[in-house]
Amino acid sequence: MAKINNDYCKLRGSYLFSDIARRVREFEAANSDAKIIRLGIGDVTRPLPAKVIEALHSAVDEMAKQETFRGYAPDLGYDFLRKAIADNDYRARGCDIADDEIFVSDGAKSDSGNIQEIFAKDNVIAVTDPVYPVYVDSNVMAGRTGVFDEALGQWSEVVYMPCTKENNFVPEFPKRHVDIIYLCFPNNPTGTTINKAQLQEWVDYANKEGSVIIYDAAYEAYISEDDVPHSIYECQGAKTCAIELHSFSKNAGFTGLRLGYTVVPHDLVVEGVKLRDLWARRHGTKYNGAPYIVQRAGEAVYSEEGKAQVKELIEYYMRNARYIGEGLKSMGYEIFGGVNSPYIWLKTPEGEDSWSFFDRLLHKAQVVGTPGVGFGPHGEGYFRLTAFGDYEKTKEAVDRIRKM
Amino acid sequence: MAKINNDYCKLRGSYLFSDIARRVREFEAANSDAKIIRLGIGDVTRPLPAKVIEALHSAVDEMAKQETFRGYAPDLGYDFLRKAIADNDYRARGCDIADDEIFVSDGAKSDSGNIQEIFAKDNVIAVTDPVYPVYVDSNVMAGRTGVFDEALGQWSEVVYMPCTKENNFVPEFPKRHVDIIYLCFPNNPTGTTINKAQLQEWVDYANKEGSVIIYDAAYEAYISEDDVPHSIYECQGAKTCAIELHSFSKNAGFTGLRLGYTVVPHDLVVEGVKLRDLWARRHGTKYNGAPYIVQRAGEAVYSEEGKAQVKELIEYYMRNARYIGEGLKSMGYEIFGGVNSPYIWLKTPEGEDSWSFFDRLLHKAQVVGTPGVGFGPHGEGYFRLTAFGDYEKTKEAVDRIRKM
Repeated sequence: MAKINNDYCKLRGSYLFSDIARRVREFEAANSDAKIIRLGIGDVTRPLPAKVIEALHSAVDEMAKQETFRGYAPDLGYDFLRKAIADNDYRARGCDIADDEIFVSDGAKSDSGNIQEIFAKDNVIAVTDPVYPVYVDSNVMAGRTGVFDEALGQWSEVVYMPCTKENNFVPEFPKRHVDIIYLCFPNNPTGTTINKAQLQEWVDYANKEGSVIIYDAAYEAYISEDDVPHSIYECQGAKTCAIELHSFSKNAGFTGLRLGYTVVPHDLVVEGVKLRDLWARRHGTKYNGAPYIVQRAGEAVYSEEGKAQVKELIEYYMRNARYIGEGLKSMGYEIFGGVNSPYIWLKTPEGEDSWSFFDRLLHKAQVVGTPGVGFGPHGEGYFRLTAFGDYEKTKEAVDRIRKM
Repeated sequence: MAKINNDYCKLRGSYLFSDIARRVREFEAANSDAKIIRLGIGDVTRPLPAKVIEALHSAVDEMAKQETFRGYAPDLGYDFLRKAIADNDYRARGCDIADDEIFVSDGAKSDSGNIQEIFAKDNVIAVTDPVYPVYVDSNVMAGRTGVFDEALGQWSEVVYMPCTKENNFVPEFPKRHVDIIYLCFPNNPTGTTINKAQLQEWVDYANKEGSVIIYDAAYEAYISEDDVPHSIYECQGAKTCAIELHSFSKNAGFTGLRLGYTVVPHDLVVEGVKLRDLWARRHGTKYNGAPYIVQRAGEAVYSEEGKAQVKELIEYYMRNARYIGEGLKSMGYEIFGGVNSPYIWLKTPEGEDSWSFFDRLLHKAQVVGTPGVGFGPHGEGYFRLTAFGDYEKTKEAVDRIRKM
């Protein structure tokens, strides 16, 4: 008799987004003339940069001709893309990362879900609270998280590091030893970040403890302040303790195109084994490379025109972020994020809970956001708005909140 | 101290293809004028069908415009593609498969590697010998295979079902109970297949034993004989015991484009849980959908023009297969496959071992193939040639073997 992986059954339902959808549906049914503006999702809305489109068309044409057709891609990514990534995202910033430490994939979500596989089941993981759900869920599915405590809203074997305005959204070191630490800066969902000195402390801590940091830098392109690190490898010693995840989704708008990469340095050795070799083996066995045409699209992001066009995209979204942030501030809201990230994390007024604020926003302003508590118990009393929408609609949303 | 997944360390090196590459390299170094013809790889070489190229360009144009841009795809695949698959590959053949039993992915390799995740660690797996390595390796990485016996070339906890000319390459039922059975027909590497009555026996066996069959139908498009099933769901009762894997690589040439799908029927329930729901949860948590443009390319495969162009592609490769098969037969070789598949599996002459035949072919005919023993101990004394090459080169290769 076949047996299922019971750890899958421990997973919590995705109540957050289905709850949101249900409440919006009910509101729309009762208010057929409602003009709802959605600032809840983390998906981009602007079209792909012209240079990316050009690269896609050109690569498609190559696939149409016998002489230039490409079959299976190298499992770990084409050399042209690995080099472009290492040159631009690392070596140009003074981080000494080699081409063969870059692993191209179909996106940071896959990588952040799969990376836990190369570690033993009995590693203890630490996550911030609130947190991007994939880090926790992929560990639940691997049987690493223990039992869920309904009252606490937490797993018994996961170490949570609360990030709230009280600690300025900077996680404190865990009180017990942990083996794997997930950090995401600029942060999803809070939009906040930490400076280089603070990240250096985490690197030093991990090296001292023998822990591995999984550093999710998906929102790196939104960093506007000098003191905020673009990569963990800007810190001394990071190559012996950190894996870094990157996405093309949020800078170049690849959410529907699917491309990302993970950096696993040669120097990252655990129990005498290079994690790089384990990750390469996973790619080789269970993955067949990102599509050639999409890898050419990724390469185009690093061309001079591509860089300029990506910059424009980011400026577009960050104008939204400023409008939301300044607008809410002028109304007296306490807000965080939005400076180095496309997310605005606001404190609900007078201790109102996240869901009640959600309902009020929906009913009074017809604006949809995301209740902070959906990302973890320490998100209670907060609310996320995203800057990925259309500028005119974003303005209207803020103006409606003002009148609410 | 972080700990690695020690099961990864049990993996055997990919000696097969690196060994082949080394021997070819050495031969080329010693024979600088050698004109090597490669009939070893399973990768296609013909350009993508015109209708697929058209769909790609058109979808790329959609991604360039605000009104038609698409961000995150549905995790499980776009409805237009799931419907086209279910309509054409199933309902048109009388198999009652619903759109929501189709899970679109970035390829059958990923799915065949990932599918074991939804099962408990203590399931016993059965594979044919010889076998496509991913089925075994992904289970090694999950800790399901026990210890490797160097002398036998087998894992202690895996049940092997030998497929040789003695049993007409039809696997016999395992002597002990097994939980998960991997079957691939038309088979890689042997190119052989089984008829519908034989597959029905496997379905009945699995239903009786409470086993799950993972049925890899990647080479389905090459079937030319009436009695060979295109899908396991042509058999009575398959929906309660079988998962089916499909690829766009070998029919439409998507090896470099990456698209596949897996069918998990609602009726497939293990320990009271729908496997479909577990697989959906895996997709939702660790995957973000195949690229929109590639899904549109997949849809084009099912258009009338697309079908005609795919048929042409397959006829091109099958002409190679016939040339290889008939040529070798006329030389006195005993050959298998090549009728319902692009692989020719030949018996080496007079008990010559696979690697010695490899060397002789390389040195005497400058043709590269794949030693059968590389796919498992019962592949010893066999050799694989593929029909995925250029027709003129394939002819020349066969003519050289004739003169050898």
